[in-house]
Amino acid sequence: MDNKVIANLKTLGVDMINKAGSGHPGIVLSSAPILYTVYANHMHINIKDNNWLNRDRFVMSAGHGSALLYATLYMCGFLTLDDLKEFRQVKSKTPGHPEYKITPGVEVSTGPLGQGLATAVGMAIGKKHLASTIFNNDIIDYYIYTLCGDGDLMEGISYEAASLAGTLKLNNLIVLYDSNKISLDGETSHTFTEDILERFDALGWFVMSVKNKPFEIDRAINKAKKSGLPSLIEVKTLLGEGSILENTNKVHGKPLSMEDIKQLKEKLNMPLEEFYVDEKALHYFKEKIKNRSSNKYIAWQKKYQSYINNILNGNDIRITDFYNQDFSFLEEEVPFDVPLEEATRDSNHKVMNYISGKKECFIGGSADLASSTKTYLDDEGDFNASNYQGKNIWYGVREHAMGAISNGLALTNYLPFCSTFLTFADYLKPAIRMSALMELPVTYIFTHDSINVGEDGPTHQPIEQLAMLRSIPNFMVYRPADFNEVLGSWQAILKNKKPCALILSRGKTYNSHETKSQEVIKGAYIIKSEKKKIDGILIATGTELGLVLNIALELEKEGYDLRVVSMPSTQLFIKQDKEYQNSILPVGYKKIIVEASNDYHLRKFVSHDKYLININSFGVSAPSYDVLRALNFDKDSIKSKIKELL
Amino acid sequence: MDNKVIANLKTLGVDMINKAGSGHPGIVLSSAPILYTVYANHMHINIKDNNWLNRDRFVMSAGHGSALLYATLYMCGFLTLDDLKEFRQVKSKTPGHPEYKITPGVEVSTGPLGQGLATAVGMAIGKKHLASTIFNNDIIDYYIYTLCGDGDLMEGISYEAASLAGTLKLNNLIVLYDSNKISLDGETSHTFTEDILERFDALGWFVMSVKNKPFEIDRAINKAKKSGLPSLIEVKTLLGEGSILENTNKVHGKPLSMEDIKQLKEKLNMPLEEFYVDEKALHYFKEKIKNRSSNKYIAWQKKYQSYINNILNGNDIRITDFYNQDFSFLEEEVPFDVPLEEATRDSNHKVMNYISGKKECFIGGSADLASSTKTYLDDEGDFNASNYQGKNIWYGVREHAMGAISNGLALTNYLPFCSTFLTFADYLKPAIRMSALMELPVTYIFTHDSINVGEDGPTHQPIEQLAMLRSIPNFMVYRPADFNEVLGSWQAILKNKKPCALILSRGKTYNSHETKSQEVIKGAYIIKSEKKKIDGILIATGTELGLVLNIALELEKEGYDLRVVSMPSTQLFIKQDKEYQNSILPVGYKKIIVEASNDYHLRKFVSHDKYLININSFGVSAPSYDVLRALNFDKDSIKSKIKELL
Repeated sequence: MDNKVIANLKTLGVDMINKAGSGHPGIVLSSAPILYTVYANHMHINIKDNNWLNRDRFVMSAGHGSALLYATLYMCGFLTLDDLKEFRQVKSKTPGHPEYKITPGVEVSTGPLGQGLATAVGMAIGKKHLASTIFNNDIIDYYIYTLCGDGDLMEGISYEAASLAGTLKLNNLIVLYDSNKISLDGETSHTFTEDILERFDALGWFVMSVKNKPFEIDRAINKAKKSGLPSLIEVKTLLGEGSILENTNKVHGKPLSMEDIKQLKEKLNMPLEEFYVDEKALHYFKEKIKNRSSNKYIAWQKKYQSYINNILNGNDIRITDFYNQDFSFLEEEVPFDVPLEEATRDSNHKVMNYISGKKECFIGGSADLASSTKTYLDDEGDFNASNYQGKNIWYGVREHAMGAISNGLALTNYLPFCSTFLTFADYLKPAIRMSALMELPVTYIFTHDSINVGEDGPTHQPIEQLAMLRSIPNFMVYRPADFNEVLGSWQAILKNKKPCALILSRGKTYNSHETKSQEVIKGAYIIKSEKKKIDGILIATGTELGLVLNIALELEKEGYDLRVVSMPSTQLFIKQDKEYQNSILPVGYKKIIVEASNDYHLRKFVSHDKYLININSFGVSAPSYDVLRALNFDKDSIKSKIKELL
Repeated sequence: MDNKVIANLKTLGVDMINKAGSGHPGIVLSSAPILYTVYANHMHINIKDNNWLNRDRFVMSAGHGSALLYATLYMCGFLTLDDLKEFRQVKSKTPGHPEYKITPGVEVSTGPLGQGLATAVGMAIGKKHLASTIFNNDIIDYYIYTLCGDGDLMEGISYEAASLAGTLKLNNLIVLYDSNKISLDGETSHTFTEDILERFDALGWFVMSVKNKPFEIDRAINKAKKSGLPSLIEVKTLLGEGSILENTNKVHGKPLSMEDIKQLKEKLNMPLEEFYVDEKALHYFKEKIKNRSSNKYIAWQKKYQSYINNILNGNDIRITDFYNQDFSFLEEEVPFDVPLEEATRDSNHKVMNYISGKKECFIGGSADLASSTKTYLDDEGDFNASNYQGKNIWYGVREHAMGAISNGLALTNYLPFCSTFLTFADYLKPAIRMSALMELPVTYIFTHDSINVGEDGPTHQPIEQLAMLRSIPNFMVYRPADFNEVLGSWQAILKNKKPCALILSRGKTYNSHETKSQEVIKGAYIIKSEKKKIDGILIATGTELGLVLNIALELEKEGYDLRVVSMPSTQLFIKQDKEYQNSILPVGYKKIIVEASNDYHLRKFVSHDKYLININSFGVSAPSYDVLRALNFDKDSIKSKIKELL
């Protein structure tokens, strides 16, 4: 009966692709035995409680295998046959690549190769932390299974994540590797001749190679579970097995011909009928999952209730606190020591540590720059193979995996942060995009926010990164000016619970008494009013605010009557109603905006390009002040530009 | 005397950092023996002929080791002592991280970790191709040496490049790995416990581990040269050796204390004098390099001249052609078959193949998407370990390394291209930035340029990528509308020889007779004039031009008198003189711009946000037309928006 289910998964997948007129049959035919084995023999799931805390997770890292995944989810009971017929149509539950929140049973959006595996590593970290802190290994004992292809394993991000998974000994992660020696353009002999098992062995993984048979795959998974290590199981498959085009790249990415489908179904001993379902096979598969899962589910509910009760009796509110998404505590009076001036990365250090002390779900780390980004959580310990309770994750110099792992943590109900220099935001862009697509509450902390970093030179001086970040849909950028605005940014971040970036300074900024944390959520507000009339409105974002405020005060002495507006979030300001926007930036007055970036979005707030004082070339290596002068972004240059414009 | 030179490299490096008040002494002290050995015993260079075609190349992938590199280059004779004293100052030859074109002897800009090693792989590919095509292995027999740290090797891009280097058996690449088990934040036991040698062995590299002694390093390099494989030599070093802070992360990134410098110099048996140079050591080092290099240099000149003469006698102008940067052939009448409609990726295929047939230096490949991006060079063969003459590089699913390798090819005087889908431009961003910083003539070809790709869904539908690319300084974006503009884009690309992106469609576009290749270099031009008066000017970039032209013709029947402007390069148009700009987009008329992206730069060409017809959210998975309709970007929606605005 195993083979009947597998055959049915194949025919359903192939029919879906055929009806949609697009899709990837190759992986459907090569990997059906793998998905079958994982779901039939290993996954503990409950279709009636899809968000069961202790469910096993499956991540289709080879996202183009969506048809196979949906066929499997149909046979599990998550989807209907009509859902399968709507494959790749507007508003269906079965989009071209798996999408989080769209399809029950889909845990992660995938498609861009490598992201799925790295996100799965994040989910494995989240599981370890959860089981070691507010729960225990009895209540939280789920596995994360992932299906990867050659493409996933060629991507640098998957190596980064796998190396870290080995270091962290994440034995709850089982990667099934669909090894068929063919990628989109042709045979991997052109591109990928390395010994993959040896590589993963070097990374500290359990590795094993098996034939594409349920029995062998099953045995390998059982061994993997006993290995105490993250596991890579190579399943030697045949791309598009059974198709006329099997074992060629032609079977990868477009529907099979009618003739091919016909001979395939005959070969599989299946009727030619489209979307045929073998009811016996369906029943058999569902029962296998149910029999195994329901016992565990029922037992688990008891354990969980007893754990909750015992904890509540003992007055421990950790669990409710973890899942309570109320962060208003940050809006109350909080006892921070605020010096006259400090770098916003230092202000941020205090606020983050305060949040962390209040919230278990606040977790994160840096790509080997915590000493510089100052995002270390002082009293929380390090997350490592001998201490899964720590909240500081040492990502190593692996920015890209750090982003995807943060996504995995968010998918485990954490509120993760991660940090590096703003210029290296480039390395994370694909993972940030996935945060934005899934709307996951990941906070990307980028310090060293301008040419102001000085001597390290243009490779370390961000210019275009703010434009890049602000252009990502569903993504918010905060650039606070000082301590108050850092606090306000976090208030907004915790209230919005959306993907965002927090942009911080390396050097000291003046802690103004005029900035207001509670105004940050409006995006912009007045921090210095005009005296009588308005000769001009100076707008600054973040680190440049102090400078602009200084210039305004000097110009006031020279007779100019100026308003100064702080704009920690251009995007939040745009979202305010017109009335508020007009009260801050009334029409009919000259407005000038200053930011050490080349983000042209700022043009929205002024009436002509010339009122945009920014930087449009790469920086240079020199002491900070010399760099600013070389790029005409020192105080004198900006002041005289403003005077010219007024 | 070896040790004296090494001691002097260390003291010079430490003094430079001390004088600058910033820098990275840890690597200076750990890696001086490595640089000494490479330069004293292996590098064939001629300081009087720094661009010697057959010079050995050294790439400081660990770019923060700049002080050590500059100290070495000083002792080679490339720099003066004054240059060292100007470390990290404006306009000095010794910036904070190595910068290409600034410092003689610096082959590549480095700093962002992993880029250097991946670029070195590109240089190694370029060398192989050069030696196998217009030259031979006798004339071109140089090596590429690279110094990497743990940080480089943790980055995904270095894995991607190393895996490909193994597949391609690049035996001209020798990586020296400064293995000190410490990175910026602390010991690598937190982050990087993998068996690195085993990993590189799995990748098909020669690997060896040695002590930090010139004799051992030297012997390992000699073995590496005989291995026939790319080589990784692990040198077991002590970070900041000799400093009070040795073997801790505190010695990584800031100047040593005066006390520390004093004890260090005493330990090294060097005088305390700042920037002290031991003349005997200097002489010894220079002589070692000169004795070895000058014989080879002189013999090489003879070989080269004889090769040139023989070839010129045989009327073979390949060499002059290779180095002749004149590409005007593309501006002449060229015999292309231009159908009524085709996808611009297909138009591009023809133009690229035409260029390739004319130019040896035109080389490139795709990240496993050549079948879709259509960038395969049909008659040029594949570049692989058994055929280094091929011009098609199979990068595998390794976008990031592909970018950096293209940089390495450009540094070897090639005009490289590479390709993937526009949405995956994100994966390459850090490498594109390096192209832009070095102003290397790399052409990034990004197809599948909008939500129009349809069923693959939002992960495959670019929205914000044009904004990201157009915001990079020194970087040009071309988005041609049809065959003529593809041709014109390449004319501009080959004339400008700067880093750029070529953005192409997946679906068919109409090959208009009104588009003009020679106008592309002006950025924008009129393709449909108004009849009498101007009711409005419709501007479109690239793939949307046909649609907008259609709408304009329909509106004309409804009584509107419209001008249509094609804008294949917003950036080139901005560079034109005001007179030309006004002739195309005269002031006083309503202008509307249409592009399937969210790039706010387009706002430059219209008078109000509302005249910008674009897309500000992620796409959806559905057939192309349904996607366009779901995002109000179908023809009817755009037409009615335009009518409202007119």
